[in-house]
Amino acid sequence: MSSPTATLLISCPDQRGLVAKFANFIYSNGGNIIHADQHTDASAGLFLTRIEWELAGFNLPRDIIAPAFGAIAQPLQANWQLHFSDRVPRIAIWVSRQDHCLFDLIWRQRSKELNAEIPLIISNHPQLQSIADQFSIDYHYLPITPDTKPAQEAKQLDLLRQYNIDLVVLAKYMQVLSSKFIAQFPTLINIHHSFLPAFPGANPYHRAFDRGVKIIGATAHYVTQDLDEGPIIEQDVVRVSHRDQVEDLIRQGKDLERVVLARAVRLHLQNRVLVYGNRTVVFA
Amino acid sequence: MSSPTATLLISCPDQRGLVAKFANFIYSNGGNIIHADQHTDASAGLFLTRIEWELAGFNLPRDIIAPAFGAIAQPLQANWQLHFSDRVPRIAIWVSRQDHCLFDLIWRQRSKELNAEIPLIISNHPQLQSIADQFSIDYHYLPITPDTKPAQEAKQLDLLRQYNIDLVVLAKYMQVLSSKFIAQFPTLINIHHSFLPAFPGANPYHRAFDRGVKIIGATAHYVTQDLDEGPIIEQDVVRVSHRDQVEDLIRQGKDLERVVLARAVRLHLQNRVLVYGNRTVVFA
Amino acid sequence: MSSPTATLLISCPDQRGLVAKFANFIYSNGGNIIHADQHTDASAGLFLTRIEWELAGFNLPRDIIAPAFGAIAQPLQANWQLHFSDRVPRIAIWVSRQDHCLFDLIWRQRSKELNAEIPLIISNHPQLQSIADQFSIDYHYLPITPDTKPAQEAKQLDLLRQYNIDLVVLAKYMQVLSSKFIAQFPTLINIHHSFLPAFPGANPYHRAFDRGVKIIGATAHYVTQDLDEGPIIEQDVVRVSHRDQVEDLIRQGKDLERVVLARAVRLHLQNRVLVYGNRTVVFA
Amino acid sequence: MSSPTATLLISCPDQRGLVAKFANFIYSNGGNIIHADQHTDASAGLFLTRIEWELAGFNLPRDIIAPAFGAIAQPLQANWQLHFSDRVPRIAIWVSRQDHCLFDLIWRQRSKELNAEIPLIISNHPQLQSIADQFSIDYHYLPITPDTKPAQEAKQLDLLRQYNIDLVVLAKYMQVLSSKFIAQFPTLINIHHSFLPAFPGANPYHRAFDRGVKIIGATAHYVTQDLDEGPIIEQDVVRVSHRDQVEDLIRQGKDLERVVLARAVRLHLQNRVLVYGNRTVVFA
Repeated sequence: MSSPTATLLISCPDQRGLVAKFANFIYSNGGNIIHADQHTDASAGLFLTRIEWELAGFNLPRDIIAPAFGAIAQPLQANWQLHFSDRVPRIAIWVSRQDHCLFDLIWRQRSKELNAEIPLIISNHPQLQSIADQFSIDYHYLPITPDTKPAQEAKQLDLLRQYNIDLVVLAKYMQVLSSKFIAQFPTLINIHHSFLPAFPGANPYHRAFDRGVKIIGATAHYVTQDLDEGPIIEQDVVRVSHRDQVEDLIRQGKDLERVVLARAVRLHLQNRVLVYGNRTVVFA
Repeated sequence: MSSPTATLLISCPDQRGLVAKFANFIYSNGGNIIHADQHTDASAGLFLTRIEWELAGFNLPRDIIAPAFGAIAQPLQANWQLHFSDRVPRIAIWVSRQDHCLFDLIWRQRSKELNAEIPLIISNHPQLQSIADQFSIDYHYLPITPDTKPAQEAKQLDLLRQYNIDLVVLAKYMQVLSSKFIAQFPTLINIHHSFLPAFPGANPYHRAFDRGVKIIGATAHYVTQDLDEGPIIEQDVVRVSHRDQVEDLIRQGKDLERVVLARAVRLHLQNRVLVYGNRTVVFA
Repeated sequence: MSSPTATLLISCPDQRGLVAKFANFIYSNGGNIIHADQHTDASAGLFLTRIEWELAGFNLPRDIIAPAFGAIAQPLQANWQLHFSDRVPRIAIWVSRQDHCLFDLIWRQRSKELNAEIPLIISNHPQLQSIADQFSIDYHYLPITPDTKPAQEAKQLDLLRQYNIDLVVLAKYMQVLSSKFIAQFPTLINIHHSFLPAFPGANPYHRAFDRGVKIIGATAHYVTQDLDEGPIIEQDVVRVSHRDQVEDLIRQGKDLERVVLARAVRLHLQNRVLVYGNRTVVFA
Repeated sequence: MSSPTATLLISCPDQRGLVAKFANFIYSNGGNIIHADQHTDASAGLFLTRIEWELAGFNLPRDIIAPAFGAIAQPLQANWQLHFSDRVPRIAIWVSRQDHCLFDLIWRQRSKELNAEIPLIISNHPQLQSIADQFSIDYHYLPITPDTKPAQEAKQLDLLRQYNIDLVVLAKYMQVLSSKFIAQFPTLINIHHSFLPAFPGANPYHRAFDRGVKIIGATAHYVTQDLDEGPIIEQDVVRVSHRDQVEDLIRQGKDLERVVLARAVRLHLQNRVLVYGNRTVVFA
């Protein structure tokens, strides 16, 4: 985390020489690569890579890196993103009534596990206002009914613009977002309290109990138009037994949800997640 | 495994004094309880218990235990089973083309991990005959087509009777059994190569890959009329990554399938699994 | 958790009829057993059991239960404890500079996961005072030097008495307690940041990194005279790789420490842990 | 796995341009990289990488690749190995009396999970001869006593040469090899039946039971002069409880040992393991 770095996330049709081309771009400009990883999806014919290098000693000025790399990427039909580590992303956390993920994310941000700012909390319930106050984060209570939803989503979008938000984290926000909303703000991470694709939708713990599973899970994924169908970033599980009632599954699930969501958010903030199709490559 | 034991598996409507009543039955007849465990499902209003005691020094002759306990169980509306540890169950293993679970079960039986006999292997393919020969187990090749299925299932039932089989283990048998068959021989354990209820049915690893899951699993369950819907005995999982292609999931899945199936069969053979509704209590 | 219950934790030399004797004591006094579990350690010749029953409808007044059961236990040479669920235990949390376990325990207590009161925090550092204030918990800063240790331990014991503390949780308290202290207050749970018995003592994560382990762990145990040698209540692990530097092990270890310590404290508070020799039976 | 590939495993002092230099070597000679991964150990100032490319279409003849790359590696003070995927390594499996790892490795080799030949089994006991016969593998029974050990190790070395062995897998071989032996044949992988560094040496399961651990493990590592101190390739664990007696730990441990050893051997055979100091980088 010491000196600032630049990170390129690239995906393009697979072909010979890509590793060399990208490495040469950094090297020929005097850059020192501190992390490079790549993956080839043969079935998709796709090459995906992450390259991070130190800006100290790099010959290209920051504002020239994008156009300079663009000239290399264009003939390769590459999709790419460029990120600078000293540009701190801004997160809006959305919650309903449960506080465990909210508390956890704030604690991790305060303890520097998450390199981000958290200026905004949005909720469809008033209960968690006190936590926001406790950490002096703005809390906007926007209750949702079928009738008010469109208007409230418009307000939510205004808030995201107003607070200059880069990432929305749905930390147990128990409302479905409209396709219209997602189309306008597509960078959302959601925590679903089941081992997807098992038990999508409502009440996964109750359904896990009814099914008599011996293991429960949690899944962090990007949000897409299709509920609980977005690209999976991280999952984890815990073993349960016949002694565990629904409330026990919920209790143990909270620990999973906290950790799985935090890992996913951290990976995203470090620009280690590359989405293609409905899959993710996680350059851990 | 030393001196023979008797085991009672009991489920009945919950009420006061059940633990005392059952313990007194053993104690008053001079039995020494070596394992006793119980579970109360409050929502179902059900009491479930497993009691194992040494036959040495027990005052009731074996053939009197059942009627004697029946007199206690009847007024309690209890369902119960009585098992003797020196009565070795007989297993039929059903396979198709994959040998990993078959090999594993035979190895565990030979190394005394499974207290059972394996006199019979049934397959809808000829390939694994050689393994059967290698361990001198009878191998019956019964190919299945939609037309021949009813006739072949009749033959399969004959074989189960003829070999006096107590338990059928579907060790990667890639055919669906008819409801008619299951009705006539209901004691079947199947290994499904996914973390149920995710990916029931065909090609779970391909679908897990397409979904981009970060963890895969295997599930051992009793077979019911509803495909992959039966009571779950055991599950386990392994973490995968974007680097794992379908063949890697299949390879790692094999290790899961072997272990999960073996655990489930062992628990069943030790009379540690009690089914109620679509759930299991595992008295581990 | 609804109506109050009584719980007996019993260990005694194994002999016939124990299950019946104990069950009859509850039943003959009109008690309804809601949890009963037992374990026999053949090598130690020891029978250990936990019995929990509803006080509603139990014929013995509370103050008579202990003497009445004592009359049964005495001839059996049984060691036993009696607990009432509506008697809320009082916890003192001891910390140094790290806040993750402290935060987590307070959050769980506030969210009713832990049935306890937390009136007291003791630290050898001043840093975490603000968290104590935030949740209005008394915070006592007692710095330790080799010279001041005896005097400070005397103060600590006074505080435990003064606050009527039942359990001390060492939540990353980086000081070793003297045998003298432990002899006077023996009910302490510690979280050690390694998979004991690997890496006892100082800097386990640095040593885990140097050893190149592929998995790290955390261990919650009762404190005894021998550092990190006490009976283990709970352990858990997480997989790491060559990419994880010491700071990554520390970060991931924090998540382990929080969960493992919380599970152990919860099991203790529910009177589910029975210690014998240097081992625990966990009646989960 | 279709067309043959070449793999370079390289470690050298970290410096700018390494990724580019190595990638250019492949690219400028018309090679298509199918896997490239690297790791920088900042504290050790070391850069480590694995590069695999298709030999089809590569302009350098096989016998020229090594000298050509050597010219690049020499000024970088790089240590490196070159491997060809169609050169099938030859394994000698060493066992004592337990057959589970032997059976498992043979099964995996037969089912193509392990790209290797297994022409030789060496044992200090005669019991497993029958398994060797069953799979027509030469079995050499070389009993060891303190007196005969030097002579027998000489015979063992002769056999390794005679059978042209690349890798020795100690699959529960319960004898310590002399430093002299290891100096002459250093490529050995051992499975230790504990979660190292916990319980090195003899009877780890007994000691794990005595310590009352809640999780047991297994560790696959390269063999060095210091018993159980060699670089760790892979570890895994399984949860146990107070109900598990020593024989239960041994039984469950066998499943761990099989899988952990097999994973380590597979990673080694795929040239994915790079040792430096007492650590491994596993390019999974």
